[in-house]
Amino acid sequence: MSSDILAVDAMGGDNGCETVIRGSIEYLKENNGIRIALVGKEKLLKKELKKYGMENDDRIFVINAHEEVSMKDQFLTYWRKREKTSIKKGLDLIKQGRADSLISTGNTGAVMAISKDILGMLDNIDRPALSIMVPTLKGHSLLVDVGANVDSKPKNLVQFALMGKVYLENVLGIKRPRIALMSIGEEDSKGNELTKNTFSILKKLDINFIGNIEGKDIHLGEADLIVTDGFTGNVTLKVSEGIVDLMTSLLRREIKSSLLSKIGVFFLKSSLKKIKKKLDYSEYGGALLLGVNGVVIIGHGRSNVKAIKNAIEQSREFVKKNVVNKIGQEIASMEKIFEELKYV
Amino acid sequence: MSSDILAVDAMGGDNGCETVIRGSIEYLKENNGIRIALVGKEKLLKKELKKYGMENDDRIFVINAHEEVSMKDQFLTYWRKREKTSIKKGLDLIKQGRADSLISTGNTGAVMAISKDILGMLDNIDRPALSIMVPTLKGHSLLVDVGANVDSKPKNLVQFALMGKVYLENVLGIKRPRIALMSIGEEDSKGNELTKNTFSILKKLDINFIGNIEGKDIHLGEADLIVTDGFTGNVTLKVSEGIVDLMTSLLRREIKSSLLSKIGVFFLKSSLKKIKKKLDYSEYGGALLLGVNGVVIIGHGRSNVKAIKNAIEQSREFVKKNVVNKIGQEIASMEKIFEELKYV
Repeated sequence: MSSDILAVDAMGGDNGCETVIRGSIEYLKENNGIRIALVGKEKLLKKELKKYGMENDDRIFVINAHEEVSMKDQFLTYWRKREKTSIKKGLDLIKQGRADSLISTGNTGAVMAISKDILGMLDNIDRPALSIMVPTLKGHSLLVDVGANVDSKPKNLVQFALMGKVYLENVLGIKRPRIALMSIGEEDSKGNELTKNTFSILKKLDINFIGNIEGKDIHLGEADLIVTDGFTGNVTLKVSEGIVDLMTSLLRREIKSSLLSKIGVFFLKSSLKKIKKKLDYSEYGGALLLGVNGVVIIGHGRSNVKAIKNAIEQSREFVKKNVVNKIGQEIASMEKIFEELKYV
Repeated sequence: MSSDILAVDAMGGDNGCETVIRGSIEYLKENNGIRIALVGKEKLLKKELKKYGMENDDRIFVINAHEEVSMKDQFLTYWRKREKTSIKKGLDLIKQGRADSLISTGNTGAVMAISKDILGMLDNIDRPALSIMVPTLKGHSLLVDVGANVDSKPKNLVQFALMGKVYLENVLGIKRPRIALMSIGEEDSKGNELTKNTFSILKKLDINFIGNIEGKDIHLGEADLIVTDGFTGNVTLKVSEGIVDLMTSLLRREIKSSLLSKIGVFFLKSSLKKIKKKLDYSEYGGALLLGVNGVVIIGHGRSNVKAIKNAIEQSREFVKKNVVNKIGQEIASMEKIFEELKYV
């Protein structure tokens, strides 16, 4: 049963609550049929809503949470126990059926851990995983895990693969998605202990496992799903971001230094815009936290207004498509596979 | 004592011996004071030399090695035992003082393992590490390890850091190079077990350790040396390559589809060339294998003629600067540090 209310953690993110609130308001102005619960410091958020004349608009309202989880991970155990954080309060709304989903651009580790605590895990799944769409030459591929777990075990990676598979089948309608394992060479034998052991399990399952994929090939679009541990996935994502930034900076420097380049960029403007759009994280909303019993989307810390709007749209889509339940049901039906994984 | 002979493994690489030989010949035509020993199948290589009228030129000659190590890793233990491979024969030349260095674009795992077997390791160093220069906004940073080791231990990463430090001090003349550890967050507490344990050792050493660095920041030029395990380093390198390829392909597609873009690229040509040059792996030659007792450079499997020429120039530089001995001496003088690392 849907409440048609989405919760948005207004306290996380590098750009402050202004950006999150602006994104939420702009979304509401362009879309119908939805209400937003902003979770965070009431006074602060209400003041911000007033700026836009939205303080009495019943499409958006504030749920007070006076504690703000810092972006530093040192105190994770501390934050997990706190009752009044915006993350905890937002997740409570889902748990109580008062909201359909939570979007947070806050501390990833905290959102993940507290989601696990409050919402619980799907049957057969040991750890949550962050999944994100990455651009490819042919469209997009789903990359899992991009940072929820460090020090994963083979059985975790196999669980990520199975969750990602059900996600792609149900959200994107891809039949028998091509699943690849990120490694440092294409041959079966390449990789570290983790990938080699994961490989040997994946190839035995009744899934469309296409083998190892190298970092240089993940953008070719030959796999629908790329499975990796959270450390490698996070490095992958951030290195990609860094390279795009580097190329943009180099181009900007060139433009400054030469008139010809300025002319060139003028003519290329619309093409460069299209490419930028294709590579821009904010176009893709946030990352879905797979494995927990509820729709939780973790946005980039640097999320801008557009990214917030896209994350809201994305979370509606996940709720509408009933993704979490579908994943839960399918995973539950794979009892035999998971029984075997216990001994891995 | 220098032999002024460089050995080049002509059998590795994705582009066949033609590319390696052409690179070697072009280098010799543009540079003096050096001879090249091409190692590989004699008949094949001599036939190729003949094409360029170089079959009797004493600046380049063939050392016969009739076995060719495949690019597949399955048979690594097998290849390590073979006596007649081009990799083994090339390394023998260094061991016997008949060549100063070896360049190979062959199977990285095999070059690394056989180098360790034939040349031996520097005192106090357990495993070799591949080091490569990556482009940054401000110049370049050294990234170690980019694929020699998977499943590294903290003490290996610390050894990589120390070798990289001596390399930068001696080859590039950087005083107290800024050393960073690749992780998934800047705070001390972020990372996996490996990086956290490595962090705690690095911060105790008398080196300029600046802490963790994220994938998105490695191209900002704020660290001179970035230390990571071979799996993550390899993924980093290949993801970077993949993103550059993706952007190039997207731009090419745009150019094809619009006249305006064609005009734009015409004006931008020289700027795009500069950027491409900055990001092009072939500009940087190959990766130096740190830790073995000799100069071994491993080139990219996709090496083109320019990359081969640059790798040859690079290996001359390493020989001239006596890099391996300097690293060996400095590392040997760090007895106390390594004594402590034994218990890590």
